[in-house]
Amino acid sequence: MTEVDERGPEPHRHARVTRWTGAGAATADDVVAAEEPLQVVLDGRPFAVIMRTPGHDLELVLGLLFVEGVIRSRADVRRAAVAASGRPTDPVPFPLRELPEAENVVELDLATPHGEDRVGWQRNLVASSACGICGAATLDALRDDLPPLPPGPVFAPAAIVAMAPALREAQATFELTGGLHAAGLFDRAGRLMRIREDVGRHNAVDKLIGGALLGDALPLRGRALMVSGRASFELAHKAVAAGVPLMAAVSAPSSLAVHVAHTFGLTLVGFLRGDRFNVYAGGERIAA
Amino acid sequence: MTEVDERGPEPHRHARVTRWTGAGAATADDVVAAEEPLQVVLDGRPFAVIMRTPGHDLELVLGLLFVEGVIRSRADVRRAAVAASGRPTDPVPFPLRELPEAENVVELDLATPHGEDRVGWQRNLVASSACGICGAATLDALRDDLPPLPPGPVFAPAAIVAMAPALREAQATFELTGGLHAAGLFDRAGRLMRIREDVGRHNAVDKLIGGALLGDALPLRGRALMVSGRASFELAHKAVAAGVPLMAAVSAPSSLAVHVAHTFGLTLVGFLRGDRFNVYAGGERIAA
Repeated sequence: MTEVDERGPEPHRHARVTRWTGAGAATADDVVAAEEPLQVVLDGRPFAVIMRTPGHDLELVLGLLFVEGVIRSRADVRRAAVAASGRPTDPVPFPLRELPEAENVVELDLATPHGEDRVGWQRNLVASSACGICGAATLDALRDDLPPLPPGPVFAPAAIVAMAPALREAQATFELTGGLHAAGLFDRAGRLMRIREDVGRHNAVDKLIGGALLGDALPLRGRALMVSGRASFELAHKAVAAGVPLMAAVSAPSSLAVHVAHTFGLTLVGFLRGDRFNVYAGGERIAA
Repeated sequence: MTEVDERGPEPHRHARVTRWTGAGAATADDVVAAEEPLQVVLDGRPFAVIMRTPGHDLELVLGLLFVEGVIRSRADVRRAAVAASGRPTDPVPFPLRELPEAENVVELDLATPHGEDRVGWQRNLVASSACGICGAATLDALRDDLPPLPPGPVFAPAAIVAMAPALREAQATFELTGGLHAAGLFDRAGRLMRIREDVGRHNAVDKLIGGALLGDALPLRGRALMVSGRASFELAHKAVAAGVPLMAAVSAPSSLAVHVAHTFGLTLVGFLRGDRFNVYAGGERIAA
């Protein structure tokens, strides 16, 4: 069963990046982790949209349905259809159709059709927004709701570089567990205005945005947002929704975060460490 | 506005931990990041359950509702009620009631009542299971669905220690981006059987579980699961649902992951690095 060399589609996408160092800026080709929305259709009805890295899509959906109590074994699946790129490497014990044109779709019909009165379905309807993708399942849906960010302001590289140690030091004061993410709101000089921490990065960002709403400070036009860890689709979405012109992350962005940043005019910074950072979108807002 | 010293409730919980090193095991008191479910009640109806670190709960809910397009400004909030521990430090521009007994609840009434036909609400109903908490909003709901794990088997510390480099080396083969999480399935000797990668840790675990379902290998009684990064509630939930007796993480577990592990008899290992690891629950399955 060892199969560490068996893979789905390439799990990364190419991206053009501007690398800033103490010596200045240079552009380069880079790769980012692939993140794309997977539409799950269950018994002919839209069931869920999952932001995921393409590959092993059928397994992903089956695993989720099993954990959520919708199916108990492979015998509960009557037939399935996946895009060619999502095709499993192992044989499956039910008819599997290939969707020739559709990427990012898994269709599944259950042996016992999954009525809306089924427990699993109901529980999914009661579902939560914790993931942050709820209501923003596709870029098209986003595009209808959110205007692009207006141009400006400009941030100095020194201000961006100042954000990382400020966030880390503020977090170190509170963080004993190694288990909390942080999000910080900064002014244009890279000074920390407010920090929030949470086991969920998306929650820490929501806490900042909610505080800004209470203070009637939305949209956050002149601010920058920095998060510990990685930058996924949902964080880029939240930044755009809050009108923040620049978001920086300690680690890597996903391909969909980069795409959202390009689409809505967000300046997206990744790998912000020491005097270095990468700019994945919106580089016109950064100037020495 | 600088307020890096202003905090909500303590964002951590105490936990009893067994620290294994090359020299043997010793118990100690430790702290883990607090994770608890927050019930959001909107216009008298359950709206969402958010797994979050307590503190700044009202801001969290307002931020989420803003991002999801349900509210546009603080003027859209007619009144709110929060537990004493979730009370904001700044004054709020609407009546704020304190819920004397209820922890982990935010009630919010909108100026324009939030009908089920409202776009935001609809979009939340279409919502996704990507977060993995959908349908498992509370421990009580879980407890009704999932039986506790049966005792055994026993894992040798050497087998656990072997998992981390195996996962890291397998991941290094594929990981160019710094943006992918990995989950691995291991046998009792700590040998990697299968690895899956994804921008979402929960997806990587679902892919493993779905593959096991396709292979008719559920429950995964004799296996161990290891994830890159942290271990939150949702991952512990998935491990229990799949019948995996042991889950290990490179980084810290959350308080709710520890609680789930204790409740359902899961062996939970954190900070698995080098020849060291911490055991947060189910230590009886580990013996030299």
